[in-house]
Amino acid sequence: MLVLIGLGLYSEKDITLMGLEEARSSDYIFAEFYTSVMPGLNLDRLEKIIGRKVRLLSRSDIEEEGEKVILERAKKSKVSLLVAGDALISTTHVHLLLDARESEIEVRVVNNASIYSAAPSLAGLQNYKFGRSASIARPEERFFSETPYTTVKANMKMGLHTMLFLDIKVEKSGTYLMHAKEALEILLKLEDRKKEGVINTETIAVVVSRAGAPEFKLKAGSIRKLLEEDLGRPPHTLIIPAEFHFMEEEFLRAFASLSEE
Amino acid sequence: MLVLIGLGLYSEKDITLMGLEEARSSDYIFAEFYTSVMPGLNLDRLEKIIGRKVRLLSRSDIEEEGEKVILERAKKSKVSLLVAGDALISTTHVHLLLDARESEIEVRVVNNASIYSAAPSLAGLQNYKFGRSASIARPEERFFSETPYTTVKANMKMGLHTMLFLDIKVEKSGTYLMHAKEALEILLKLEDRKKEGVINTETIAVVVSRAGAPEFKLKAGSIRKLLEEDLGRPPHTLIIPAEFHFMEEEFLRAFASLSEE
Repeated sequence: MLVLIGLGLYSEKDITLMGLEEARSSDYIFAEFYTSVMPGLNLDRLEKIIGRKVRLLSRSDIEEEGEKVILERAKKSKVSLLVAGDALISTTHVHLLLDARESEIEVRVVNNASIYSAAPSLAGLQNYKFGRSASIARPEERFFSETPYTTVKANMKMGLHTMLFLDIKVEKSGTYLMHAKEALEILLKLEDRKKEGVINTETIAVVVSRAGAPEFKLKAGSIRKLLEEDLGRPPHTLIIPAEFHFMEEEFLRAFASLSEE
Repeated sequence: MLVLIGLGLYSEKDITLMGLEEARSSDYIFAEFYTSVMPGLNLDRLEKIIGRKVRLLSRSDIEEEGEKVILERAKKSKVSLLVAGDALISTTHVHLLLDARESEIEVRVVNNASIYSAAPSLAGLQNYKFGRSASIARPEERFFSETPYTTVKANMKMGLHTMLFLDIKVEKSGTYLMHAKEALEILLKLEDRKKEGVINTETIAVVVSRAGAPEFKLKAGSIRKLLEEDLGRPPHTLIIPAEFHFMEEEFLRAFASLSEE
């Protein structure tokens, strides 16, 4: 049996009792943190809470050796894989479940908080007012994706907010977490290039910093103002809102220092 | 201090360790279950896990007496409010936090799994392929909302999936949970009325039944087929997908008995 266990947003304390129960009753416990980052998590403390050894897997352990490392064991034993956020958001995990199914391995999923629902919720924004979301990737020399720009444009036209996930790269050389200011600069650069009048320095944006952490921060305001302010440490999620419902605006005034400018 | 604690999707075991810690260190612990339903939750067992008395609040306790019941206490003591799903999805809770802020009460939020992210994730569908979501309300004699229909239409046009939240009414007389079959019939009736060619009995739909429960069920297929099948007990979430990515389709074939028809 293979159990995918979501660990939530911030630290080892965000695991659910059900997740803990499933992990404790497993024969093997693996964890991977290259698809997403939990800034407050410490592997030793996680092992202490579960009361068992947890083996940390790299990208290649799962993507190339997943068959050998995980599935071979799951044919005969109970194997848990601990992952950041909710359990199934990443393509890697969908792949793994499909491979497990092919080998007739029973699978189980333990859900947890995901930035996908936590960010709008922490910002007091109504989920049915969100259109399609998009990601902002670290610009490469030969590739500069216009998707975030065209997504914001299409959503704004329909009066919908856009959630923008910022790039995360966990590499041996270190972890790159895109800062919201870098993301805002990218959006302004895309406007410079496309000139379709979607974004300018007066556009209102919302930055969710370290959802689930004690040092959680929520900031809203014009891009110009946000670029000058302390937005807190990443991971960041960026929201470009369309028109506010009055309660959304009231919430951001109260909790995100949104001011009438 | 006021702490909003999300309890997750299904039972008292879905609380996080952080949620448990916050609840245990509170002077007063309240819970409300009228904005959303956790089918496996038992209040006695929840009290046993927390090791403390939990007082169940009604809609009027919060919406009319919130000031007196919750906020007066939160001015001098630590008060926790336990809620289904994630902590801040419902308007009621946004209101409560705003009132707390006005009274200069410190607030804290403990996130948890929300159906908003769990449903796409359990269905193996990619979150950036979802457009705006909508709710299907129990039809009233004088009001039959066309919003779910127009939302599906707009999303389909852009190749985006639509998540449809089905009505929940927790009343003294009992709990009404809209069944996915009722929701599908409503969509077909809306097509009958609007005749814009959005939905017919051959349209593919996905039903997520009891996310987070041991008896969790995932079914995908034509509306015609789904109307004849056992979809599991509610709570249900309905997804009307647009075009599938090949991996989404593969996932639904493997886990939701989607067949080539």
